Amino acid sequence: MVKPGYIDRKVAVQRRLRRIEGQVRGLQNMIEEDRYCIEVLDQIAATTRALQSAALELLDDHISHCVAHAVEQGGAEKDKKIAEATAAIARLVRS
Amino acid sequence: MVKPGYIDRKVAVQRRLRRIEGQVRGLQNMIEEDRYCIEVLDQIAATTRALQSAALELLDDHISHCVAHAVEQGGAEKDKKIAEATAAIARLVRS
Amino acid sequence: MVKPGYIDRKVAVQRRLRRIEGQVRGLQNMIEEDRYCIEVLDQIAATTRALQSAALELLDDHISHCVAHAVEQGGAEKDKKIAEATAAIARLVRS
Amino acid sequence: MVKPGYIDRKVAVQRRLRRIEGQVRGLQNMIEEDRYCIEVLDQIAATTRALQSAALELLDDHISHCVAHAVEQGGAEKDKKIAEATAAIARLVRS
Repeated sequence: MVKPGYIDRKVAVQRRLRRIEGQVRGLQNMIEEDRYCIEVLDQIAATTRALQSAALELLDDHISHCVAHAVEQGGAEKDKKIAEATAAIARLVRS
Repeated sequence: MVKPGYIDRKVAVQRRLRRIEGQVRGLQNMIEEDRYCIEVLDQIAATTRALQSAALELLDDHISHCVAHAVEQGGAEKDKKIAEATAAIARLVRS
Repeated sequence: MVKPGYIDRKVAVQRRLRRIEGQVRGLQNMIEEDRYCIEVLDQIAATTRALQSAALELLDDHISHCVAHAVEQGGAEKDKKIAEATAAIARLVRS
Repeated sequence: MVKPGYIDRKVAVQRRLRRIEGQVRGLQNMIEEDRYCIEVLDQIAATTRALQSAALELLDDHISHCVAHAVEQGGAEKDKKIAEATAAIARLVRS
């Protein structure tokens, strides 16, 4: 199996995802305590931004390693990897 | 304490948040298994959309109950609640 | 015909939209001058934010006038207007 | 001067930007005609999506040409171009 672009940053990525999991559990506590709607909405916005930051770091890893490697190889694999990356970026921009 | 707009839908909101928590733990498993970057990115985009759907439902509750109640009261509270809601919407649109 | 929520701010809304039109023409000039991709992308991001700010102001007008009016009337119109507003917010958040 | 990544697609990019300019002028006509807030908001959302599609195409051009070229050169220029591209993507995701 090919190694993913984030392989050297796995510990940092997992730490970040556990922090996001903590934010989602924090949201459940807020609902349990009947916290005011606007406070809950702001906490959801913060969690969304944290997820997007995680995605942007993974994308940086992916371009720096997987896409760059395919470009160095050249040929059909280069075009395939670039098209795949821009399609993933489109899904992030639209999410 | 004033009851939040989502008070009658607490069970549904909690169920949705637990599902999102499951998606975030699923992301951690994907990283653990060295899954391909693009698959991870797509799963983050799906989780982001799930968070935004939860926010939009809470916003609907908030406008239907808290904002509508303030409008019925009229006066300064009406303007305050509408300004507060549009500020929260702005933070969601920009997150 | 019912007056739209922005009726008292038409001059300000039009001024803002003309500025956005100017930004889009500025983009065409950048392409004409073969400006660097990243500069063009940043100018598109700025134009997108300007459009979203215009939308958020119109939404504020809409909630303050049209939705508030329907809430004061009560009945089916109240529920219809709130559902319609939250659906429009959803389209903004996802665009 | 270095040619931008979109150089071979200038005609198509300009056509797309003129269409977006037309959408912004259409918004001004809607305001002039006192059209209903929700219709205006939906047209703003459509214009925002059109701008984002233009950005995503330019980004594809940029990665396929400018970033790929820098990767093939290697060295500091490679890292600089990738960091620059991911920063531009972050601004698009957050706009």
